[in-house]
Amino acid sequence: VGRTLQLSLADLLEGFQQTTVIATMQCAGNRRASLLSVRDIPGEDPWGGGATGTGKWTGVRLADVLAAAGVGDGAHHVAFSAHDVSRLPRPAQPYGSSIPIQKAMAGEVLLAWAMNDADLTAVHGAPVRVVVPGYIGARSVKWIDRITVQTEPSDNYFQATAYRILPPDVDPAKACPGDGISLSSVALNCEILRPVHGEQIHPGPVRISGYAFAGDDRSIERVDISTDAGQTWHQAELDEQASPWAWRLWHTTVNLNPGRVNVRARAWDSTGATQPQSPEHVWNPKGYANNSWASRAFDQLDHDAPIAKGDAGLKCR
Amino acid sequence: VGRTLQLSLADLLEGFQQTTVIATMQCAGNRRASLLSVRDIPGEDPWGGGATGTGKWTGVRLADVLAAAGVGDGAHHVAFSAHDVSRLPRPAQPYGSSIPIQKAMAGEVLLAWAMNDADLTAVHGAPVRVVVPGYIGARSVKWIDRITVQTEPSDNYFQATAYRILPPDVDPAKACPGDGISLSSVALNCEILRPVHGEQIHPGPVRISGYAFAGDDRSIERVDISTDAGQTWHQAELDEQASPWAWRLWHTTVNLNPGRVNVRARAWDSTGATQPQSPEHVWNPKGYANNSWASRAFDQLDHDAPIAKGDAGLKCR
Repeated sequence: VGRTLQLSLADLLEGFQQTTVIATMQCAGNRRASLLSVRDIPGEDPWGGGATGTGKWTGVRLADVLAAAGVGDGAHHVAFSAHDVSRLPRPAQPYGSSIPIQKAMAGEVLLAWAMNDADLTAVHGAPVRVVVPGYIGARSVKWIDRITVQTEPSDNYFQATAYRILPPDVDPAKACPGDGISLSSVALNCEILRPVHGEQIHPGPVRISGYAFAGDDRSIERVDISTDAGQTWHQAELDEQASPWAWRLWHTTVNLNPGRVNVRARAWDSTGATQPQSPEHVWNPKGYANNSWASRAFDQLDHDAPIAKGDAGLKCR
Repeated sequence: VGRTLQLSLADLLEGFQQTTVIATMQCAGNRRASLLSVRDIPGEDPWGGGATGTGKWTGVRLADVLAAAGVGDGAHHVAFSAHDVSRLPRPAQPYGSSIPIQKAMAGEVLLAWAMNDADLTAVHGAPVRVVVPGYIGARSVKWIDRITVQTEPSDNYFQATAYRILPPDVDPAKACPGDGISLSSVALNCEILRPVHGEQIHPGPVRISGYAFAGDDRSIERVDISTDAGQTWHQAELDEQASPWAWRLWHTTVNLNPGRVNVRARAWDSTGATQPQSPEHVWNPKGYANNSWASRAFDQLDHDAPIAKGDAGLKCR
């Protein structure tokens, strides 16, 4: 059934228009760590807000390659398979995923061979990987070896069973293919990056900064900062955005009284939606898509208090 | 600058393919009432969860009409003006709005002359209105008289100044064009419709039902119900969806102890995002896009307790 188009890396380089997209890649488990205060999540890494990054990706549009292969009726999903077997599940599972055809045909999805103007390294997916801007990182398959246009989503373990939000009372070890909410677009989120957690801050105004990201088809419109547990908020300044597919960096400067400070941040998107307050309200058995308010504690020192020795965080301000 | 295409209703009927879309129309102020418990919102109607509805709309695709008119470079927004002047603002303002060109060219946006298989009545926008599925109702302009393809969003009062989420400390009377978050897609939301608030329920299992809506480009994936203030949740059943642009109705049946019951509901969308807990966390000066958890109080009667007379709500179960 259907036809197959075989392409070498040279074919991609010579036969298609090269394009570049600046895009944020974000793990579905980004910020999982703060869910652990609600309930344990065995077997998953306790990522903080650093399981994400923004890069400049160079390659060809997946849409152009699909057009060359011919996409007919019944093309609802585009599945990726790879030279990649994960030993994390029992039994071990080949890695793969799929995305809806509408997303696959949008110009921002790439088959990429370079990141930040350098050829991909092996760990980043050389020779060629998928980059799906706005979607959870799990859909951006590395070491790709086959692309299949099909009627149904991929039945690969990492599409059908993993990377899904299960109800709180479900045991993920007993989850079946199709259970839970299959993740695609990243949910509205933000994180505080500076000050570092537990940092000791010199007396004077404190610069607070971080990122916010609204995923696919939505944009960050506002970021609020609170130093009184969310009773009052003020708006941070949004930095210029590198591309529609990149996170939005933000910063603000606040004056604080000496002592322990707990700063919270929340973002608003172009639908007027904002983030839930508490990790308790978004906890799920695999710890995905934690987009509760960002929270960061640090110490504002008094004018005559000594700075603790060896505080590397201070150098970062 | 540019050309003008003039079309009569007969031209629309005869010159373009007729199409039908089942779509939910939702006011940006839907569920505003529960924000009033946080702080007053003078001058705005205290809508409950009924400032929304789902209809079958018949007309022609705006995309087809724009194609016939020719859409060139610099076409970033499509603005609508109407035989409509609102006396609510001081001074009175002509009504209008705009949507991004990508949305205008999507097949679901209609110039409609019929609702639920009957010609539009005057109050619904006859002879022709815009229907923008997934967007706040304010963008679905009635009594349309002109469509303009332009570089910038509409400078009409209702696009540039009203229908925006302002920060909590801003006086809306002093808001300037461009202030705040301009609303487009409806934010993820849900409401409990049955039982009615304050209803007295016969002993036995109680059926709870309502709607959930995820707006543009996202879908409802789960609805949770809690009878213990959000400590534990169980999943409601999702009814079949009438169209990708329609709300998702849901229902569940619960067994309750006699007495006052407070049921809460929250929806999850296809990004794994869910709703904020409290109206306090989404309050804004014009009271838009309240998508905090739905909440409904009613009385579960004891087996030997009399039903209060004249309780119309009971007939609706």
